[in-house]
Amino acid sequence: MRIGVIASIAHRLPPVGYGPWEQVASTLTEGFVAAGHEVTLFATADSTTTARLHPTAPHGYEESPGLDAKAWEGLHNAAAFERAGEFDVLANHFDFMPLTYSRLVDVPVVTTIHGFSSAAILPVYREYDDVARYVAISDADRHPDLHYTATIHHGVDPAAFTFVPGPGTYLLFLGRIHPAKGTHAAIEVARRAGQRLVIAGIVQDQAYFADRVAPLVDGEAVTYVGPVGPAERDSLLGGALALLHLIDFEEPFGLSVVEALATGTPVVATPLGSMPELLRQGVTGFLVKDVEAAVAAVAEVATLDRRVCRDEALTRFSAERMVRDHLRVLERVVGESRT
Amino acid sequence: MRIGVIASIAHRLPPVGYGPWEQVASTLTEGFVAAGHEVTLFATADSTTTARLHPTAPHGYEESPGLDAKAWEGLHNAAAFERAGEFDVLANHFDFMPLTYSRLVDVPVVTTIHGFSSAAILPVYREYDDVARYVAISDADRHPDLHYTATIHHGVDPAAFTFVPGPGTYLLFLGRIHPAKGTHAAIEVARRAGQRLVIAGIVQDQAYFADRVAPLVDGEAVTYVGPVGPAERDSLLGGALALLHLIDFEEPFGLSVVEALATGTPVVATPLGSMPELLRQGVTGFLVKDVEAAVAAVAEVATLDRRVCRDEALTRFSAERMVRDHLRVLERVVGESRT
Repeated sequence: MRIGVIASIAHRLPPVGYGPWEQVASTLTEGFVAAGHEVTLFATADSTTTARLHPTAPHGYEESPGLDAKAWEGLHNAAAFERAGEFDVLANHFDFMPLTYSRLVDVPVVTTIHGFSSAAILPVYREYDDVARYVAISDADRHPDLHYTATIHHGVDPAAFTFVPGPGTYLLFLGRIHPAKGTHAAIEVARRAGQRLVIAGIVQDQAYFADRVAPLVDGEAVTYVGPVGPAERDSLLGGALALLHLIDFEEPFGLSVVEALATGTPVVATPLGSMPELLRQGVTGFLVKDVEAAVAAVAEVATLDRRVCRDEALTRFSAERMVRDHLRVLERVVGESRT
Repeated sequence: MRIGVIASIAHRLPPVGYGPWEQVASTLTEGFVAAGHEVTLFATADSTTTARLHPTAPHGYEESPGLDAKAWEGLHNAAAFERAGEFDVLANHFDFMPLTYSRLVDVPVVTTIHGFSSAAILPVYREYDDVARYVAISDADRHPDLHYTATIHHGVDPAAFTFVPGPGTYLLFLGRIHPAKGTHAAIEVARRAGQRLVIAGIVQDQAYFADRVAPLVDGEAVTYVGPVGPAERDSLLGGALALLHLIDFEEPFGLSVVEALATGTPVVATPLGSMPELLRQGVTGFLVKDVEAAVAAVAEVATLDRRVCRDEALTRFSAERMVRDHLRVLERVVGESRT
C-alpha cells in the first residue's frame, strides 16, 4: 500500500523525551516500511524515519516557542491532504483537525484517536462519524457516540526494553507530573510500604509539583530524576520492584505500563480507564482501589513472575502486533474504498 | 455571483458588542445581497442576515466558554469548503486557516487579511501567496512578502451614525482597553488639555486597566462607561470634541476612526499604521507624535469643519464604497478563474 502517515508535530519523531502520540506514530511508520509498504511520513523536519519524510514544521511546536502551533498544524494537515491523491490511505495520528479536510479528498482516512483532550472537541468527531474510520487505543476509551472500526492497543519494541529477571529495589513513578497521574499517591504508598521511590518525567503542573511533590523529595527515600530518555527509561523500569501507576482519571492507554511489563516489572495501578485491559490482576500486577490496597499490593508484588510480565508484553503489547493490527485495518479500508 | 462568505465565529454577525472583523463581514454580506447576489453566510447560528445563513458554532466562541475555538473553527471552515462547488467564489474573512483548505477545491478564494495577530502566522500566508488573492485593509498593513490583489479600506453605514454639526464637550477614547491602544495617553492628554474624557470599550488587559486606568477614573474628569452598543456608540462619538486614538502600534485599520468622522467628530491620532491613510492632517483631524502635540491639537480641534469630516466618511469610508470595491475584486477573480 501507499500509506501517508499524519503524525503529531508537537514533538519530533521519534520523540527524544515526552511524546506518546509521536512514539506510537513513529513505531507504526517504521513497521509499515519494514513490512514493505510505500510510506510517506508527515512530521516535523527534524524527525528521523526510514519512510519518505514530508517535513512541515521545522521542530516540534511544544519545543519551539517561536512556532505558532495553529499555523503549523494547518500547514501540516494541508500538506498531507494536498498530496492525498498519491496514497491509497491516510493514517491520521494527529487528533481531530485532519477530519475537517477528509471530505475534500477521495482517499480514505483512518483516524486513531489517541485520547480526548476535552469533551468540547467531540462535535468534530461526531460530525465525521459517518465517514471516518476511528481506531480506539483501548475499549475503555471508546466514546459511546462514535462508531469504531477497531480497537488496537499500543505496542512497544521488545528489543528496546531489557528483561530483568529478578525483582528490583525501588518503586517507580514514570510519567507526567500532574495530579491526575497520582505522583502524590505514589509518594504516600512508597512511604507507607517502606520502599524507596524514584520519580521520573516532565513536570506538567508546576504548582502541584511545588506543593505536593518537591517538598517530599529528599534524594533518599524519594528521588526525582527529571525527564528521562530511552536508555535511562529502560534501566529505571527494569530495576524497579514495581511501577506505581495510581492514576486518578480514565487514562485511554498507559504506554509506561506496557514498557514496565517489557522489562519484567509488574505494575500497581488504579482500575481506571484502560488499566483493567492492560493488566492481569495478580499476574502482571495489581489493580488497587485505594492507598491501603496499593500498600498491600507492594508487599506482594515481588512474588509475581517477571517472565510472565515480559511474555505479556511480547505477545499482547509488541510493536509487531500493533503494526500488524493497523495494517489489517488499513488494508480493509483500502479494499472497501475500491469496491 | 454565487458568493460564500466565511465569517469569523469569534462573535455573532452583526456583533452586539466588540467584533470589528464580524462587523465588516456583516456589512459586506448585507451589501452583496442588496446588490442582487446569491449569498451564503457561514457564521455562528445566532447571527442574523438577509443572506442564506449556514450556521456552524451555536454562538461566538469568545462569548461561550464551553465552545472549543479550534474544534468549531475546523467545523466551520470545513463546512464552507465542503460546499465550495455551489459557489463562484469564497470570500474569506476569517484569518489564515481557510487558506489551508483552498487547494483542495476548484473555487477561487479571496482572503481579506484583517490583521496579523503575530509574525508567527506568516508561514501560512507565504505558503498560499501564489494561489491566494489577498485583500489588504490598508496599504500600511500590506506585508512586503505577500502579493495583494487590492487594498480596500473598511466602510461604515452612514445611516447608522448621526451627523452632529457642532463640536462636543468631551474627549473620547473608544476601543479595547490595552496599552497598545493608548488609553493611558488619552487620560494624560485630556488632563493636560483641561478637557473631560469618556472611556468606552472592553477591558482587554486587566492588569493594565487596574494599574493605569481605573485609578484615574473619578466619574467626573475621567469616566469609564464600559463596552457600548451601536446606539450609545453613535451618541458618544457624535457628542465628542474629538476622538483620541493615541495608539502605540501599527494598527491595520481603525474602524472607530471612520465612525467618528461619520458623526462629524475629528480624530487626534498617532501617525502609526493606517492612520495617515485614514486622516487628513488639519482637515479631518491631527496626526500627533507625542502627548505635547496631542494637547496642542486638542486646543485647535474645534476649528475643524465637522461637515468635512462627515463628507469624508460618506465618500471614502462608506459601506457602499466598500461593498462596491469588494464586488469588483470578486468579479475580477471569478472572471479570471473562468478563463
